[in-house]
Amino acid sequence: MAKKAETKPPKGTRDFLPVDLRRREHVVGVIKRIYEAHGFQPLETPTFERLETLLGKYGEEGDQLVFKVLHRGQQLVNGLREVTADPRFGGAPGGAMGERLAPAGLDPNAELGGVPRAATLRAAVGRSGETAPWAETMLADMGLRYDLTVPLARVVAEYQGKLPPVWKRYQIQPVWRADTPGKGRFREFYQCDVDVVGSSSPLVEAEVVSAVAECLRELGFKDFEIRLNHRGLLRAFVEHAGIPLALESAAIVAVDKLDKVGREGVAAELGAKGISPESAEKLLGLVLGERPIAELKQALAGHEGGQKALAELETVLGLVASTPAQAHVVFNATLARGLGYYTGCIFEIAVKDLAGSLGGGGRYDGLVGMFSGKDVPACGFSIGLERILVVMEERGMFPAQLGAADVVVAADKDVEASGRMLQVATVLRQAGLKVDLSVKAQSPGALRKGADESGVPCVVFVGADPAGLKVWHKQVAGPETVVPEADLAQWIRSKLQG
Amino acid sequence: MAKKAETKPPKGTRDFLPVDLRRREHVVGVIKRIYEAHGFQPLETPTFERLETLLGKYGEEGDQLVFKVLHRGQQLVNGLREVTADPRFGGAPGGAMGERLAPAGLDPNAELGGVPRAATLRAAVGRSGETAPWAETMLADMGLRYDLTVPLARVVAEYQGKLPPVWKRYQIQPVWRADTPGKGRFREFYQCDVDVVGSSSPLVEAEVVSAVAECLRELGFKDFEIRLNHRGLLRAFVEHAGIPLALESAAIVAVDKLDKVGREGVAAELGAKGISPESAEKLLGLVLGERPIAELKQALAGHEGGQKALAELETVLGLVASTPAQAHVVFNATLARGLGYYTGCIFEIAVKDLAGSLGGGGRYDGLVGMFSGKDVPACGFSIGLERILVVMEERGMFPAQLGAADVVVAADKDVEASGRMLQVATVLRQAGLKVDLSVKAQSPGALRKGADESGVPCVVFVGADPAGLKVWHKQVAGPETVVPEADLAQWIRSKLQG
Repeated sequence: MAKKAETKPPKGTRDFLPVDLRRREHVVGVIKRIYEAHGFQPLETPTFERLETLLGKYGEEGDQLVFKVLHRGQQLVNGLREVTADPRFGGAPGGAMGERLAPAGLDPNAELGGVPRAATLRAAVGRSGETAPWAETMLADMGLRYDLTVPLARVVAEYQGKLPPVWKRYQIQPVWRADTPGKGRFREFYQCDVDVVGSSSPLVEAEVVSAVAECLRELGFKDFEIRLNHRGLLRAFVEHAGIPLALESAAIVAVDKLDKVGREGVAAELGAKGISPESAEKLLGLVLGERPIAELKQALAGHEGGQKALAELETVLGLVASTPAQAHVVFNATLARGLGYYTGCIFEIAVKDLAGSLGGGGRYDGLVGMFSGKDVPACGFSIGLERILVVMEERGMFPAQLGAADVVVAADKDVEASGRMLQVATVLRQAGLKVDLSVKAQSPGALRKGADESGVPCVVFVGADPAGLKVWHKQVAGPETVVPEADLAQWIRSKLQG
Repeated sequence: MAKKAETKPPKGTRDFLPVDLRRREHVVGVIKRIYEAHGFQPLETPTFERLETLLGKYGEEGDQLVFKVLHRGQQLVNGLREVTADPRFGGAPGGAMGERLAPAGLDPNAELGGVPRAATLRAAVGRSGETAPWAETMLADMGLRYDLTVPLARVVAEYQGKLPPVWKRYQIQPVWRADTPGKGRFREFYQCDVDVVGSSSPLVEAEVVSAVAECLRELGFKDFEIRLNHRGLLRAFVEHAGIPLALESAAIVAVDKLDKVGREGVAAELGAKGISPESAEKLLGLVLGERPIAELKQALAGHEGGQKALAELETVLGLVASTPAQAHVVFNATLARGLGYYTGCIFEIAVKDLAGSLGGGGRYDGLVGMFSGKDVPACGFSIGLERILVVMEERGMFPAQLGAADVVVAADKDVEASGRMLQVATVLRQAGLKVDLSVKAQSPGALRKGADESGVPCVVFVGADPAGLKVWHKQVAGPETVVPEADLAQWIRSKLQG
């Protein structure tokens, strides 16, 4: 017998069967509706981008995690030719880049078509276990979308003059990362990004935070916090602590781990990065001091950048007070966000009893201009769909029976009624009901059971009775009710609303 | 100055800016709603599948059109090792598979790390201009989704027992083909498939056709036909014309081109395939005879398969008469559909003045079982989203200003009102309106003009007047109206409905 084909979805990806998919669609639908209510406009970009667009934007590790699309036709032939002609392809034995590796079962000294096979065999690429990024760019020309920010920057550069000067866009699409899959970590997953491009007004921060808070509230979250901090404040802390500017990034990356490794862990990492114990203590004192903005103003008296950051935080907090985010936004000086590109306010969603965040964002005025060479201010927020779904699942926050049909139309026992079934279904559909049709002869009991199990509350049995149709409804006790055909849609609708 | 980065979307793909995207979403929304009203359940599958899942399912040409995802890390090293060790990699000069190709600018006789460079250089893959499919499968492990039918078959095999015995699923997702892009032909495009898996009942054909007809009607199409034919009838024609069964596929593929090459073109192709002029004439006479089913029953008297096909066509036409598809479905004996896998009824959407179809489908009882090894009857219909959009665009069938905001909230001239703007926006949003916020100081004239151009009918100016807010509305002539804040949402809503 032939080996059964592997039919699982590829590693790190998922098939979404109806029940799961409807939950995803419920969440995406709410997010989309709220983003729209805030005047954001949708954008979709292609699944793959040129490798040159993607590489170099996510750090060395990120480059490795981009799924690459193989060259096609002559381009692939050219690419293979380029790889094999490259000095890094098959170097000296034991050298840094090459190692002689003979495939099993082949005589390394045999000749092949006039070409010494040994030479071909030596042409192995890279050390065993080491990837060959240089070879990848010769063999592939495109990569799968890694995030929604680089495509946004490309779009902003490409359609200059066609987009509004202040562009509020949202984008809800999957991204792909060739990461090791784990619990809640996938190779294909969705991001829900909202960004305002082209304005430095603090109203932008308020709008973005308001939209995200409203999404969470509409989804049923009550106990969330949107933590707010400012990169300029962190920089002021670093300077105030006497840490050299060259170590600023390292210091911020260390502080970002407070949640995970605690104060001592961060102190150790700061030390390892070459920061003196005094400076480290001073920085941690500032970050963890839980001092209100007014006190920090005094602590950072005379520090221009620090004062500016604190004033911006005050403005944003003041504006947010006029939005539904009001009860949820809190200033939190420990918030650092690891990514290097933020330039102003930073945000993160925190939910009780959950390590990690449901999303985050901030102002990043230097990034969107990367392709156009212009300075384009921007501020955005990314909601992590997969984590939201996990938390909502754990907390039982989904509405019951999302998307099930309202009614199944079936033939009454031993009656051939296919045409009549279609007529009845058509009338009910035109009345706006979601109608499934039973195409299999089944007993009334089996039909009721099947409907109930899949969340369908009602079965209509089409038969020969001139008085009407027999209808079973979950909410109506006892035997089937006979309902005149003309009243059927309204009868079912009244039960749905009941 | 550095060369400006290429910011166009990759060849054959598109960025969807808001106006275009909203049109797509409008069409997809209608199709989804109608599929749901017919009791179909949604499915989504991963963007990439194992290459072994995809290859061999779409013919040799199809295999070449699958975008392949490069191996990663050690797997790529192994793959390159495998390619270079393969006898087909760099054969004898002038041989069938190899040709010595020296990259320009390199001395082919130089030595490199102890390995004769000439040997490396000879290691070119395939003839110039020829792809190397065998090498592709060593360098890549996955491919981008090519259609929605193979993933459906995989899902049916994987989740046996977890899916309902008769499964009505729809799937609206992009697919990718490494084809040469052209007018209306893309490398990334959407398919909207609806299929019923697990039933041989002719009710299935009626439901699928009904759903598709209703989609087109809801989108505003009036003049469409859904052509209906049966593979069994075509086979009976072929047999009745005295064409050997071995040439059946060739004959059907030729007949499928009637629309494009006309009767004489098809006759020529039939001749070229080795079919006698008499048989070709007889076949074309049957196909083009425009005879009703009752007459064909007589013409094919005694042909069991032909009688069965005609009876099934009659049944489906009878059932369809009870659905909204009734006025649109017509029996058409010339319809052939090129694909080999159909086994029963076949359908195609034809629209006046449009070459080619907006979609098609049929019964394909042998396909879905390809991974499970079981016989799984199935019947479906695929709507081609891109062609629908082109036709709707040409005919001006889109609603005006899809998705624009209902109102822009701005500050009155020279008034600093950021907090108040947010308050007003929040109230309007909570009343269900789509509200944009002007974050840029602009003159009232510029604001009105900008709103009007982007389809927003209303601007609210937040100022200091205690009597209310100044409101401009497209439908209200003259200067701005002053509306009390408490009445604002209702005032705007009444104008929207007007």
